[in-house]
Amino acid sequence: MSSAALPIASLPVDPWRLCETSFDPATNFLHETLFALGNGYIGLRASHDEGYTGPAGSSLDGSYLNGFYESEPIVYPEAAFGLARTNQFMLNVPNAKGIAIWIDGERFDPLQGSLGQYERSLDFRTGVLERRLEWTSPGGKRLALASRRLVSFDNKHLFAIELTLTPLNFSGRVRVLSSINGAVRNQEAGDDPRVGSAVSGPALHLVEMHQEASLTCMLHRTHNSGFLLASAIDTALDCGGAQPARAERDQLTAGQLFEFEANCGQAARVTKFGAYYSSRDYPADQLDALARATLLAARADGFAVLCERQRAYLDDFWAQADVQIAGDDALQQGIRFNQFHLLQSVGRDGKTNIAAKGVTGEGYEGHYFWDTEIYIFPFFLYSKPEIARKLLEYRYSGLEQARERARQMAHPKGALFPWRTIAGEECSAYFPAGTAQYHINADIAYSIKLYYEATGDLDYMARAGAEIVMETARIWLGIGSYDRAGRFCINEVTGPDEYSALVNNNYYTNAMAQMHLRFAAAIADTLRGQRPDDFARIAAAITLDDGECAAWLRAAGRMALPYDAALGIHEQDDSFLSKKPWDFAGTAPDRYPLLLNYHPLVIYRHQVCKQADVVLALLLLSDQFNLEDKRRDFDYYEAVTTHDSSLSSCIFSIIAAEVGYADKAYDYFMETARLDLDDTHGNTHYGVHTAAMAGTWMGVAYGFGGMRVQDGALRFAPTLPSKWQHYQFQIQFRGCLLRVRVDAAGAAYTLLAGAELAFSHHATRVVLTAAAPGAHIGQGE
Amino acid sequence: MSSAALPIASLPVDPWRLCETSFDPATNFLHETLFALGNGYIGLRASHDEGYTGPAGSSLDGSYLNGFYESEPIVYPEAAFGLARTNQFMLNVPNAKGIAIWIDGERFDPLQGSLGQYERSLDFRTGVLERRLEWTSPGGKRLALASRRLVSFDNKHLFAIELTLTPLNFSGRVRVLSSINGAVRNQEAGDDPRVGSAVSGPALHLVEMHQEASLTCMLHRTHNSGFLLASAIDTALDCGGAQPARAERDQLTAGQLFEFEANCGQAARVTKFGAYYSSRDYPADQLDALARATLLAARADGFAVLCERQRAYLDDFWAQADVQIAGDDALQQGIRFNQFHLLQSVGRDGKTNIAAKGVTGEGYEGHYFWDTEIYIFPFFLYSKPEIARKLLEYRYSGLEQARERARQMAHPKGALFPWRTIAGEECSAYFPAGTAQYHINADIAYSIKLYYEATGDLDYMARAGAEIVMETARIWLGIGSYDRAGRFCINEVTGPDEYSALVNNNYYTNAMAQMHLRFAAAIADTLRGQRPDDFARIAAAITLDDGECAAWLRAAGRMALPYDAALGIHEQDDSFLSKKPWDFAGTAPDRYPLLLNYHPLVIYRHQVCKQADVVLALLLLSDQFNLEDKRRDFDYYEAVTTHDSSLSSCIFSIIAAEVGYADKAYDYFMETARLDLDDTHGNTHYGVHTAAMAGTWMGVAYGFGGMRVQDGALRFAPTLPSKWQHYQFQIQFRGCLLRVRVDAAGAAYTLLAGAELAFSHHATRVVLTAAAPGAHIGQGE
Repeated sequence: MSSAALPIASLPVDPWRLCETSFDPATNFLHETLFALGNGYIGLRASHDEGYTGPAGSSLDGSYLNGFYESEPIVYPEAAFGLARTNQFMLNVPNAKGIAIWIDGERFDPLQGSLGQYERSLDFRTGVLERRLEWTSPGGKRLALASRRLVSFDNKHLFAIELTLTPLNFSGRVRVLSSINGAVRNQEAGDDPRVGSAVSGPALHLVEMHQEASLTCMLHRTHNSGFLLASAIDTALDCGGAQPARAERDQLTAGQLFEFEANCGQAARVTKFGAYYSSRDYPADQLDALARATLLAARADGFAVLCERQRAYLDDFWAQADVQIAGDDALQQGIRFNQFHLLQSVGRDGKTNIAAKGVTGEGYEGHYFWDTEIYIFPFFLYSKPEIARKLLEYRYSGLEQARERARQMAHPKGALFPWRTIAGEECSAYFPAGTAQYHINADIAYSIKLYYEATGDLDYMARAGAEIVMETARIWLGIGSYDRAGRFCINEVTGPDEYSALVNNNYYTNAMAQMHLRFAAAIADTLRGQRPDDFARIAAAITLDDGECAAWLRAAGRMALPYDAALGIHEQDDSFLSKKPWDFAGTAPDRYPLLLNYHPLVIYRHQVCKQADVVLALLLLSDQFNLEDKRRDFDYYEAVTTHDSSLSSCIFSIIAAEVGYADKAYDYFMETARLDLDDTHGNTHYGVHTAAMAGTWMGVAYGFGGMRVQDGALRFAPTLPSKWQHYQFQIQFRGCLLRVRVDAAGAAYTLLAGAELAFSHHATRVVLTAAAPGAHIGQGE
Repeated sequence: MSSAALPIASLPVDPWRLCETSFDPATNFLHETLFALGNGYIGLRASHDEGYTGPAGSSLDGSYLNGFYESEPIVYPEAAFGLARTNQFMLNVPNAKGIAIWIDGERFDPLQGSLGQYERSLDFRTGVLERRLEWTSPGGKRLALASRRLVSFDNKHLFAIELTLTPLNFSGRVRVLSSINGAVRNQEAGDDPRVGSAVSGPALHLVEMHQEASLTCMLHRTHNSGFLLASAIDTALDCGGAQPARAERDQLTAGQLFEFEANCGQAARVTKFGAYYSSRDYPADQLDALARATLLAARADGFAVLCERQRAYLDDFWAQADVQIAGDDALQQGIRFNQFHLLQSVGRDGKTNIAAKGVTGEGYEGHYFWDTEIYIFPFFLYSKPEIARKLLEYRYSGLEQARERARQMAHPKGALFPWRTIAGEECSAYFPAGTAQYHINADIAYSIKLYYEATGDLDYMARAGAEIVMETARIWLGIGSYDRAGRFCINEVTGPDEYSALVNNNYYTNAMAQMHLRFAAAIADTLRGQRPDDFARIAAAITLDDGECAAWLRAAGRMALPYDAALGIHEQDDSFLSKKPWDFAGTAPDRYPLLLNYHPLVIYRHQVCKQADVVLALLLLSDQFNLEDKRRDFDYYEAVTTHDSSLSSCIFSIIAAEVGYADKAYDYFMETARLDLDDTHGNTHYGVHTAAMAGTWMGVAYGFGGMRVQDGALRFAPTLPSKWQHYQFQIQFRGCLLRVRVDAAGAAYTLLAGAELAFSHHATRVVLTAAAPGAHIGQGE
């Protein structure tokens, strides 16, 4: 119901690139996010190599490593038993990008002197951030500068910069300083949790710094989490021959300085490689050697080879993942931008996950949420399943902490995953909208179910999946209870919609718990039958009682699922409909988001939703509802939802498409698709919204494509927005790669890889084979 | 359901005194609380004048001024709009009691050398803490020491100490240093909110220190609250003539030093007066002069005169307030101890109130809660109504802040009082058990109703009472709403029982809101009829709309009051009965109180009560329930209540007495009556429990006496516990003083003052007059 006008897109529309043609402090902070590079581990905001002298508050020159964190005690003004005790927050690591340039003593600074032509672009096919500019110094010297930067998809520890400078109207003394700056600290969040962390002051303490020839290496230690971090650079300068470097250092910064005579018209090229290694991944005493080896290899390969590998990686990615929209280039750009950033953000080493803002900023402190399983996982599962599998591995790596947390929460059995975390411990400092979101357990189980149904990977289930599913299922029996009417009730939880808290029988939670319990019993059954040894091993490891599966099924069968017969809608929780409707008419536009303008109690006692809750269940548990149910639920909840969460619009878009509200489907989709590119939430400068980005993919596949996988069966029910000529997406399913292309004439399905794939198109059953890989089904068929 | 064994009373039983006969570090901390002195403003813990050298953690040498506080920002690890931003906490002020003694260079220290006879006593009739001891120094010198200390009931700014020392086996050089020590700081709370405040480090900053002749004065400033405090002492020493003093000082401590030759057997007497004045009460530039004037007058009066005045004040108090129990001296002692401490704790200047721990400790930070109105107010109203009136004045002084708070909480009209505060601003740092307790508004209105019915003081209502009642009543219309069934619902509040939070239609809250709305409409009606000018003035001041009173009555008439027909009980809230019962059988005794051993979510999702909630409504709104209702409610809630709150047992005792559970009534009463004296909650060393102390009085008058005032009508329904011979209490009502004495033969009512008083005894109507002041009603009449 919020009505902030969408800002006009400020960047040129280009289906494959992001491009800026001026350098403006007013957009610098935002563009640092949009043009940021990452590889799921290293994240470099797109601050310029040469530093930034614009006004305070118009830049955040951040470098991040996914999962590399400091911890600190959470101090409550009024403490209570069992509250999360230790926060973890992703650190801003030493800035290793810096390349400062002086010509005859004048420091290159695009905000001094004057800038001639300027272009910076990020090409989603090359994965390289390129920049070309001409600059006239205050003293009148003209310089051409070109640079390329990449963060390697091939080696998670590596990034590289190539910078070329050419004197245009002078010959003179040039100095180039390539550095690592250890004087970094994190943003302070203040009152807005979406900004950064609560920490103040530096968190990295210099242990060692050494330099030799072209190399500078720093070793830092975190105080509380006790990690060691090696940050290293190797720099070469070629100006008609390799130039020698001199080591430079002060207390917290060090690097290589090159000084030489540049001739008018003659290019000098700086090639810089950077590497980060931390003791989260490797033994502390090997970090330095590992960083050196990476830099040595990179230098031997050279920048061009790294670019080729980057391109090859992305060629492969787009071949699998590309979504095409014909008829709206801005949208096409937005969708590819989102997919590209998802790829840049996602941890894929089994020890890391994907943070709310990826590795582009410090908002939400680099924490992982349910966003992964419910919003982001499907994109990777159907586009790049090997990454999806790594996301599951991450959760398995935290199973032991989840068991410990369950004990703290008085559950004698089972595992309770944290609402927000980096390394597996609960980091939520406001439990009513944190730990109370028990649905995280079902969300994780759901993603495992999705994975299993898409891949049939019973090995994985036997090795890890079943254990997670069963351990997390147990919590429902611990938290729930039968009421006097014999209904299985789950009380005092918070659902996805954080504008209600501590409610009884949240529809989403209970329905997902029901799915979870049944899946746990089913997978136990499957393993017992097909992998008896594995089942026996798991049952012994978690001391599974004989009667537990039956108890799960009984609870699932009697699950309380609030339904209001008078309105014919599913009630968000036991009391939602008895609350006072929010006075939307009396709420000025500047009072949104409500959470920044009203005390939680005021919000909680009204019928008002921050985001999809019942409506999300309509998607995830699609088969449990008929179309009339869905339409009534959609109508009711749409009227009381503010979409103050970036997780909301994509879900409303999908259900709108399903129930036949084509215009709404399109409008909600558009709110999601360019959310970051147009900065519609006004906070993209603090980092991208990874869940909303993945929501765009769901909007195409689930929404317009009508794709659902329910209990293993794949189906489509495509519709075509009137403004588009066609759209196309691809999914990997059961070892096959399927292309779905929808235009005014109908839907074309093409099996691009794999032997045979069966699915349905509306009510039509389709089977494609390698021999007969295509089917075209016209409108109305 | 907790079953901690009561410790054996460690102090001798004496109906009028507290007495210790040994000095033991093991009991020192606790006895500092029990023997503490106060006058509603100054509070001095009973630390010995000479200081304490026992083990760390066995003493808290605190001096407090009711309402004198420092403020500090409340920092939330995850902030939200409208949360209380600034805490206020009662300060430990400079210790002005100190009197150090050296004999021939050996410092007097009862923990060195050996202590001969020792006795310390606090007499509730004299209000003087007395001590007599004989001490042998490590060097073999024997000294007799006697001291008396009082905190003046006559002048809130004054305390006095008289100390006499007599060399018993030597003549020698004696040094006496009387000091003020400014090097004080508050306790740190750690994880237990019942201990102290979250502040660390000194909060008082020395501004000025000056000394002349017998006087030392210090001026301190608080950093954030910006108050100035003058602490001053005047000391004289007489040893066969006045001895001259020498000023002594170091950075934070200063005082008067006396050095003289003492002769064996000759007593030397130190007389010390101390005064505190703060800029909360007076202009900052007058504090010094006011303190001097008080000390000068005290010196002119002399210690003996102060003792006489103290005695006179207490004679008057006991004449009005004394409760007698024949047949249980330990209980008699406990009851008088409680009454005495209530008198010592209660602020009576209209700007202060009564803190959870009075002025005896720092637990709950010196904050005022609903404890005042619901637990403590009745004792003062019926025993010392002029103090009750001052407690009401205090709330009126905070009406403006309550209006501001209502605006922060999105109520366009009305006033919302803070859950905990000193100066009127909300200081609760955990809103689910703080600001969510909207019942505070009804509790305050209830106390005003009680006052009005007991005094008929329409002047007060016109001046302040009606304005508070109407402004606070408005909030119910702001927070509540009509549901689809037309019930007026109050959602997302927390009732008195803090083991449920953010519930809908808490029975206590709704029933009290109903009372409140009706009283507001009634008092508006009364004023409109009897004081039209006053009514017009108030209505204009608060812009009372024509229809508001009708809206109040409509909401009251349709108030949702949860009742479970199957069980025949009032439900604590809409969902209480559908929650899982707590597993008491599986909960070890050391897991109580639950709040220190279970995450709030675990507690909230169970049927378990910390304290009386519905059961409290049975008392306050007695007429709305029949005896069978009350018995069923009592039975049900007794089984699920832990009494982890010290506010619980007294209420259960009262209702048990009413429904005929004599044994339970007695047992619960006993748990309350000596709660502090026997330290049954294990934390009395941090301060007394003022609400439980007043609960004792209610236990006698409301419980065994069966006293109720419902809509202005006074009635009694006395019963006699089998272990007692008789009991007696007195109440002031409508300008009369009535004595109620109950023994095995029946009840005797005597009008001690006043012209005529009507009341009922069970079903019998009684009218006493000055001419016929007595009535005896036998058992069964």
